[in-house]
Amino acid sequence: MFLKNSEPITVALDGTGGDRGSEGIVGAVRFAFAMYPALKLIIYGPSSLQEALIKSRADAERYDFVLAPQAIPQDEEPRRVLKYHSRSAMAQALQAVKDGRAHAMISGGGTGPLVALSRHILGITGHVRPALCARMPVGPGRFAMMLDLGANATATASDLYGFARLGAAASEYVIEISSPRLALLNIGTEQGKGPEVIRKARDLIGSDPRLNFMGFIEPNRIFSGDADIIVTDGFTGNIALKAAEGVAGIYTSVSGVKRFFSRFSHPDWLIPWQYNGSLLLGVKGIVIKSHGAAGNEAMAIAMVEAARAASCNLGVMLSSSPLIKPAGAAKLS
Amino acid sequence: MFLKNSEPITVALDGTGGDRGSEGIVGAVRFAFAMYPALKLIIYGPSSLQEALIKSRADAERYDFVLAPQAIPQDEEPRRVLKYHSRSAMAQALQAVKDGRAHAMISGGGTGPLVALSRHILGITGHVRPALCARMPVGPGRFAMMLDLGANATATASDLYGFARLGAAASEYVIEISSPRLALLNIGTEQGKGPEVIRKARDLIGSDPRLNFMGFIEPNRIFSGDADIIVTDGFTGNIALKAAEGVAGIYTSVSGVKRFFSRFSHPDWLIPWQYNGSLLLGVKGIVIKSHGAAGNEAMAIAMVEAARAASCNLGVMLSSSPLIKPAGAAKLS
Repeated sequence: MFLKNSEPITVALDGTGGDRGSEGIVGAVRFAFAMYPALKLIIYGPSSLQEALIKSRADAERYDFVLAPQAIPQDEEPRRVLKYHSRSAMAQALQAVKDGRAHAMISGGGTGPLVALSRHILGITGHVRPALCARMPVGPGRFAMMLDLGANATATASDLYGFARLGAAASEYVIEISSPRLALLNIGTEQGKGPEVIRKARDLIGSDPRLNFMGFIEPNRIFSGDADIIVTDGFTGNIALKAAEGVAGIYTSVSGVKRFFSRFSHPDWLIPWQYNGSLLLGVKGIVIKSHGAAGNEAMAIAMVEAARAASCNLGVMLSSSPLIKPAGAAKLS
Repeated sequence: MFLKNSEPITVALDGTGGDRGSEGIVGAVRFAFAMYPALKLIIYGPSSLQEALIKSRADAERYDFVLAPQAIPQDEEPRRVLKYHSRSAMAQALQAVKDGRAHAMISGGGTGPLVALSRHILGITGHVRPALCARMPVGPGRFAMMLDLGANATATASDLYGFARLGAAASEYVIEISSPRLALLNIGTEQGKGPEVIRKARDLIGSDPRLNFMGFIEPNRIFSGDADIIVTDGFTGNIALKAAEGVAGIYTSVSGVKRFFSRFSHPDWLIPWQYNGSLLLGVKGIVIKSHGAAGNEAMAIAMVEAARAASCNLGVMLSSSPLIKPAGAAKLS
């Protein structure tokens, strides 16, 4: 589905995901409508959500509601997801993207089910395993990308090389950088550091002339702006992101007098809920994973992120990028 | 070597480690002397360090200097360390602990060389692979322990179970908690989350009746105080710690007016350099790894940490703790 920036954007919303129930969804919908005037939603969820939406007086012109009460347990096995949850709100929202009724979908549900259903319903762009990718703030108005953040439980060196290409193919659209500096997350920058799989991935990424590879980066430099794309496996990326969130949470949740002064002392650009919303790169369509525990603003930001990704045709662009293929394959074709 | 709290404590200092050269060491020595009046040092390093110490007028009564110019490259292979660096400052400082001339040793050198030499010179307490353990602030005056932070590149489920017992055996001395709540670091708290090795470790730890095990903990809760001991493999622990440091660094390094207000807004208890100094638990002697890039205060804190560990006979206590043995072995013996 092609789209120009000025056109209205339709996002399919899984109204069953997330830890905060109908109240959280309704709050997020109202925020998102205020933030993005061209946004329309198709909301899939239980009747209680529909009632809450009506009661909230969210602009009924701007959303369609589809009754889809079936929610998927957060840690349901992929095999069971595909077998038993094909009529779930999550599956129906993905189907709306597949059918061209929505430009993007968003869910706060479990990562495992979301990745399994996205692969199954939308299909993969090919050559690369899909990966969750987030924008990380690295300075005022400046962002880096990090992937994978948990779409895959394990990753081979070849998978990590794939994530690098996926990130490089998407960076112009996600962080507006066309020749991104790429780094591999590791516990040190010296040659011999870290597990073998990371050192093998370094050799693969380093030998692809299309990638601007700078070597290893340590997790304390994720937010430094030293790299534009940080490549890691899903487990390690998730660990690093959550550790970072934990510390940011301590600084932003001080109380009393400290809370008052914190407004004047915090870096404006590092606001944890601003980086909610991970893109599932590598599937044929735009899928955004929102944090399960996201607040209203955070979930709204994720929806706007979905709309933004849709407006720049990220899905179409990725499918046709030569970077999706490994260097050898690119030479052959 | 037995020791009462009031007795003077001697720490052997590897004066070749760390990224900041003689200047950093001298600054740290002066800080440490001021912080811990009963502290004495044996300092091993090059003649330039000796000259810098004399020039600084650090109290000559309180340190002995031993000329040991040989430094070990940060990422030297263990095999080469044992073969070529037996006269290095690091090795000599460890030998001082072995011979009973010092109660503890501290180094800002490479983790790999330090672990290899510690195992070789001091020997291991047995049953468990040594692990790097740090105290993490979780509230005003309250601490948790996290291990392993990088002594081992990989860990089996059995190793993780060993780290749990090592932590439990040391917790009374390191964080003054005698029945610690123990958790395993993972990307989620649900049963099926994370790689197989972590789920196997959960089963091992969970079936040892001597351990107060609460299950998985996510990295955003490391500083929450939910757990007293957080068990993880060296790679993951190092990733989480460095990600946390990176974010804390952003909040504490704001400049200008923000810097002024930050004094009134930051939580008093979360000061990154306060948790410098990791204990290498599981070797027969007290070994502290200081951060290579540690500032003067941070390195001094690490020395005081070494002295504190020495003063409570941590080494002797660990060797004799029944927890060092797995539950089955404990039943047999």
